Amino acid sequence: MPAPHPWSVLLTVKRWSCDQNFGSFPIQHHGHEQIRQSQVIGSWLGFSSYNGGEMNGTSKMMDFLEEPLPGVGTYEDFNTIDWVREKSRDRDRHREITSRSKESTWALIHSVSDAFSGWLLMLFIGLLAGSLAGLIDISAHWMTDLKEGVCLAGFWFNHEHCCWKSNTTFTDRDKCPEWKSWSQLIIGHGEGAFAYILNYLMYVIWALLFSLLAVLLVKGFAPYACGSGIPEIKTILSGFIIRGYLGKWTLIIKTITLVLAVSSGLSLGKEGPLVHVACCCGNILCHLFTKYRKNEAKRREVLSAAAAAGVSVAFGAPIGGVLFSLEEVSYYFPLKTLWRSFFAALVAAFTLRSINPFGNSRLVLFYVEFHMPWHLLELVPFILLGIFGGLWGAFFIRSNIAWCRRRKTTKLGKYPVLEVFVVTAITAILAFPNEYTRMSTSELISELFNDCGILDSSKLCEYVNDFNSTKGDDLPDRAAGPGVYTAMWQLALALIMKVFITIFTFGMKVPSGLFIPSMAVGAIAGRLLGVAMEQLAFYHHDWVIFSGWCSQGADCITPGLYAMVGAAACLGGVTRMTVSLVVIMFELTGGLEYIVPLMAAAMTSKWMADAIGREGIYDAHIRLNGYPFLEAKEEFSHKTLAMDVMRPRRNDPPLTVITQDSMTVEDVETIINETTYSGYPVVVSRESQRLVGFVLRRDLIISIENARKKQDGIVSTSIIYFTDHSPPLPPSFPSMLKLRSILDLSPFTVTDQTPMEIVVDIFRKLGLRQCLVTHNGKLLGIITKKDVLKHIAQLANQDPDSILFN
Amino acid sequence: MPAPHPWSVLLTVKRWSCDQNFGSFPIQHHGHEQIRQSQVIGSWLGFSSYNGGEMNGTSKMMDFLEEPLPGVGTYEDFNTIDWVREKSRDRDRHREITSRSKESTWALIHSVSDAFSGWLLMLFIGLLAGSLAGLIDISAHWMTDLKEGVCLAGFWFNHEHCCWKSNTTFTDRDKCPEWKSWSQLIIGHGEGAFAYILNYLMYVIWALLFSLLAVLLVKGFAPYACGSGIPEIKTILSGFIIRGYLGKWTLIIKTITLVLAVSSGLSLGKEGPLVHVACCCGNILCHLFTKYRKNEAKRREVLSAAAAAGVSVAFGAPIGGVLFSLEEVSYYFPLKTLWRSFFAALVAAFTLRSINPFGNSRLVLFYVEFHMPWHLLELVPFILLGIFGGLWGAFFIRSNIAWCRRRKTTKLGKYPVLEVFVVTAITAILAFPNEYTRMSTSELISELFNDCGILDSSKLCEYVNDFNSTKGDDLPDRAAGPGVYTAMWQLALALIMKVFITIFTFGMKVPSGLFIPSMAVGAIAGRLLGVAMEQLAFYHHDWVIFSGWCSQGADCITPGLYAMVGAAACLGGVTRMTVSLVVIMFELTGGLEYIVPLMAAAMTSKWMADAIGREGIYDAHIRLNGYPFLEAKEEFSHKTLAMDVMRPRRNDPPLTVITQDSMTVEDVETIINETTYSGYPVVVSRESQRLVGFVLRRDLIISIENARKKQDGIVSTSIIYFTDHSPPLPPSFPSMLKLRSILDLSPFTVTDQTPMEIVVDIFRKLGLRQCLVTHNGKLLGIITKKDVLKHIAQLANQDPDSILFN
Repeated sequence: MPAPHPWSVLLTVKRWSCDQNFGSFPIQHHGHEQIRQSQVIGSWLGFSSYNGGEMNGTSKMMDFLEEPLPGVGTYEDFNTIDWVREKSRDRDRHREITSRSKESTWALIHSVSDAFSGWLLMLFIGLLAGSLAGLIDISAHWMTDLKEGVCLAGFWFNHEHCCWKSNTTFTDRDKCPEWKSWSQLIIGHGEGAFAYILNYLMYVIWALLFSLLAVLLVKGFAPYACGSGIPEIKTILSGFIIRGYLGKWTLIIKTITLVLAVSSGLSLGKEGPLVHVACCCGNILCHLFTKYRKNEAKRREVLSAAAAAGVSVAFGAPIGGVLFSLEEVSYYFPLKTLWRSFFAALVAAFTLRSINPFGNSRLVLFYVEFHMPWHLLELVPFILLGIFGGLWGAFFIRSNIAWCRRRKTTKLGKYPVLEVFVVTAITAILAFPNEYTRMSTSELISELFNDCGILDSSKLCEYVNDFNSTKGDDLPDRAAGPGVYTAMWQLALALIMKVFITIFTFGMKVPSGLFIPSMAVGAIAGRLLGVAMEQLAFYHHDWVIFSGWCSQGADCITPGLYAMVGAAACLGGVTRMTVSLVVIMFELTGGLEYIVPLMAAAMTSKWMADAIGREGIYDAHIRLNGYPFLEAKEEFSHKTLAMDVMRPRRNDPPLTVITQDSMTVEDVETIINETTYSGYPVVVSRESQRLVGFVLRRDLIISIENARKKQDGIVSTSIIYFTDHSPPLPPSFPSMLKLRSILDLSPFTVTDQTPMEIVVDIFRKLGLRQCLVTHNGKLLGIITKKDVLKHIAQLANQDPDSILFN
Repeated sequence: MPAPHPWSVLLTVKRWSCDQNFGSFPIQHHGHEQIRQSQVIGSWLGFSSYNGGEMNGTSKMMDFLEEPLPGVGTYEDFNTIDWVREKSRDRDRHREITSRSKESTWALIHSVSDAFSGWLLMLFIGLLAGSLAGLIDISAHWMTDLKEGVCLAGFWFNHEHCCWKSNTTFTDRDKCPEWKSWSQLIIGHGEGAFAYILNYLMYVIWALLFSLLAVLLVKGFAPYACGSGIPEIKTILSGFIIRGYLGKWTLIIKTITLVLAVSSGLSLGKEGPLVHVACCCGNILCHLFTKYRKNEAKRREVLSAAAAAGVSVAFGAPIGGVLFSLEEVSYYFPLKTLWRSFFAALVAAFTLRSINPFGNSRLVLFYVEFHMPWHLLELVPFILLGIFGGLWGAFFIRSNIAWCRRRKTTKLGKYPVLEVFVVTAITAILAFPNEYTRMSTSELISELFNDCGILDSSKLCEYVNDFNSTKGDDLPDRAAGPGVYTAMWQLALALIMKVFITIFTFGMKVPSGLFIPSMAVGAIAGRLLGVAMEQLAFYHHDWVIFSGWCSQGADCITPGLYAMVGAAACLGGVTRMTVSLVVIMFELTGGLEYIVPLMAAAMTSKWMADAIGREGIYDAHIRLNGYPFLEAKEEFSHKTLAMDVMRPRRNDPPLTVITQDSMTVEDVETIINETTYSGYPVVVSRESQRLVGFVLRRDLIISIENARKKQDGIVSTSIIYFTDHSPPLPPSFPSMLKLRSILDLSPFTVTDQTPMEIVVDIFRKLGLRQCLVTHNGKLLGIITKKDVLKHIAQLANQDPDSILFN
């Protein structure tokens, strides 16, 4: 018996959940393909992956022996799909429909409806994702305000709506009599230390209540609902199966807990999780159409489009969403999908707009309108912001990964509820006293992006007004008033708090996105720099650097633009997005004018961050969790050959093979029982080692069982043959078993001298599961996707065993 | 001697030029790789492909025997590159630089500068492409106006500039005293029949002058400068070599003739040729950096980015340009290239803006600003426009291809100058009397897109004014005045003229783009429909369909929007662009509002056109010219196997192979002389047919020649061996020749049972030149890219011999 392949060893994996140990259950990888076929489709929707481990092969196997080709075309949980096979199957299906369509009108209608089903599905995804996003926005807005007070005109109104509905007149925009803070409601007034403490207390209590509810719901009903979901979605789109990750329970729980988590005031955003929510919608809606339900490759096309719709509703940026899906999330993205993704993203964006959650008919989350052009010299501070963004990104990724690793490996991971409690308590206690951390992070970003107009009453716009020099809407640079200085200090404190608290927040067992906290950090830094530049230009407009473009009384610096550039830089540093980042930001401003500053900052930020650490946050989390993700962007740069990677290794026993026409049923069953490989090469003879094809373990087991039950004369000594014609044998022999139909006659092969860079390229571009290695026409070994990943990890000086579930 | 492979037969090809026969010269394909190495790099810049045929192998061969590895890594003209090899070479180079960078500071600087050279190159391309586009815009504008008159203040001013410079007051915006029409200049006044005829005559004469100059320049100096260039660029980017197509002469001549052709008033645009111009810039600038000069795959990454820059300057749409390059032009487009393309596109757009050719600081060609939202019911006319666009696209492609085929096959193709003369004469004669055809097509589109304001003096805006109901800037729908009705008739005539004349114009021997004429057709149709809708709504606002959204005195229909939607639909029908089309249009309007109408029209148009004929105009021209382009978008949908496509065919003699250690120098030379294949498989022995590797003909010839000259004891009876160790032979034998270094040890193989859909996928995704076919480990045959293309053509019921230069 040959030694077990490393890729077929039984693995005990930690349960899949935001880098955390929620317990563990055994799952088997690659080898031991137990036949639990009925689950394969059904459980994609639900939870059944959690009891998958309990079922044993033989008890279930019997159910399928009645079916013609049981078990074909589906995969075990935590397995990698074979893209080539999936795409072939879809082409076969398409060919059949096309050829039938000429036969009858009904078949023609079927063919047309099949062609349009993709578009219909996109429409549904857009509608559902847009509606859910609207729902989440409205609820989160209301619950965030609930921490501060309640509306007497109806508790279901948020602060803003409450004051809109108000008939009475009031001076300050947001201090209408109908809206009562908790102290006003409980002790009748809002002034004084006691009222402040009461409001403080209520704020902390609500925050704790929301976050605890969120973590308990996640823990109790859908462990997959935690985190941002983007690393897992990237892995799924690359061809991995995680059952239940995009199911209906995940969708429901994630939607609810996302609202709770955002409302609790934790330093997290809803943008990343919205991508997960949209992908859940996509996956569930796939079940309406056979074409997508039954084909894992086609389903992934839909999921790519759904991810685009998710970003589209998160930022109101359909084009940016499509580019995000293309650049960051997707693996296999044909141009057809690009067009459909765009459609889905557009439908989603317009659905959200008709729900109108921001109450301003605006599509975008942060609508900004700048009027002043920027000067070429301003590129210097923009590039400084880029450097800051890059440093922050690299720092954040390192610290967050270190913290998450600590959580995984120490006792800390065993108390997720306590962790959430502590982090929420600290966040809420620190946040309340500072105006800029008390407000929701999106509001903060909005305010920072905003260019000060004449009527702006916010502290950030408390400049010393000199109305003599004001012409029309154009405000010149002015001296900062005391409000601005206070705001600066508060913002600096908020910056420090956000920087540190976010590290501990991302990765907890609640839905948590990174976009908004990253942008907030950048926006604060940018605004600080912007105001500093503005004051510098105001007081020193005679300096050489300002001469020629910034005379006295001119409006030369727009601090809001600096905030925006800073936000882009920090987001770029953390996620390493490039084009999609700039396009999303462009869609927020709507002016090509500001693309150049954004691009300068994004480029600097990426270079800076890449110089410190190559991986973006999502890739770092993929590696932390050992997901089998073959990065398509990084070049494989080592000079190893296929023979260095293939199994068996130099001193291992030879590869287990099946001969094409000389092994008995018993021989094959022995091989099946003694090894755990998921498939076996079929050769002409053991001596020649000339490759004929590849047969999957699962197919072999099913076919032999089936033959033993149904085919007369098949006994243990029957010869199994894979050739076209039966081998010439004396008539005294028992009848033979022909298994050519389950043989894959076109396995991929490379020679042992093929450079690994080419092998990696083949695995990436064709989406292979395994590839056979030959030398001078003789079969020598096999390389699986896991071998490739392990090899890459090894060359990067990482533990090769970290790959796949540790 | 085995029968010659079909793919190695000497082909006499027509000279490459806008589907036209400019003479013919013999070129050899795949086989007979003559050694004209010195040209390989140099001639990329110039014309030398035209004398390539005159050089004979042996005379040149001697020059390179001194070099260590002569002829490696370069390709013959009209050959397909091997992407895998090119990318491997680049990785090797990169590895070497990286490993050296640790040795010295100088090497480190070299490594950093190497990393940034890509960005620097993009910057240069952006600057050059932007400047050239500005130059072309300004010159074309001036020369277009020259057909009507001349500026007395300075002949180098165009009409608009002339009147800006004017100090005198004048009533009509464009009738300043400094600008003299030809009749005013010659006979002193501009009134009356004689003046009209004189102006008419001058218009026609200038048009003929410009177009004849253009065709003569193209014919005389750079035959590759004709047409739009996009089909050829697609082919080049897919890995084909056409030397001189992107050279400096093509650039210079194309820039000059493009201005001439546009100014002559022919029904063509400058947008497509601008892509060609930008690609020429990219190719020429590649010579500044070794990394790109010496690697065909890297060079193609640069060209993809240059194409994006080209569209970016053509429309002022950087994002649209990148998506156009991704969707329409590029073949291999890694994400790294996406980011760099975006940078190049942005630099180009901003360079163009600082040149400011339109004199309005606008980035975009057609700047439009609509104020009114559209109603959901308006989707019906928008979809109608989509149907029209699809029909027009399909009709245009069919007629244009039929005409071009006629030109190729009949005597017509022999008189390109006459053809241009006749078409220009007809165009000019028909165009002058109609105001809307007399103006340049871009001006026409601008006017059609324009929403009528109060002060608009154009005929299209001559509505019956009812100033009582006007509030502010908002004009209600009004009854059309006589001017509008006249304009409608003139536009209808212009539409008919454009539809027909464009068919004959596209494909002539002048630079000619299709974007503008297509958009013009659509814009006219759209405007006509828009005005019709507007009048319908005005006179019948009580109809059910208008009730609820279009009451009396409201501004409900924007005819300019209809024009824009129509333009998008027609452009989509002709080119089958999808996302990039919508994004370009979106960048023109700058409002997400109007994406939905554009998308509806573009989708309908594509569906409609696809239902009639699958190919877009560029693909149709690629097929017409038989370029070896393997379409990446279309699924291969037939059920053939690799064995049906491979050579040798069933009854052919067996494949010519070389054995690894038993053939003499003479044997190999005989094979080389008797066959014309570009490479030979190396096998263990003729009996076993077990594959060892693949050796290129060119490498074999060079190595043997080299060995005969330099290595002692190599005679005709010397054994050539490809193994690691020399075969055991008696010492009396002459010394042996080891050629392992030139053997490709990792040839791609598939089994004979592999479905062709998978083989096609491999060819596409990996960019192979050839692939070997095995059966049970034995070598059986070979499939080349040309075999694949021929097979696809055959299955599509086309003549398989149409592939490659017929």
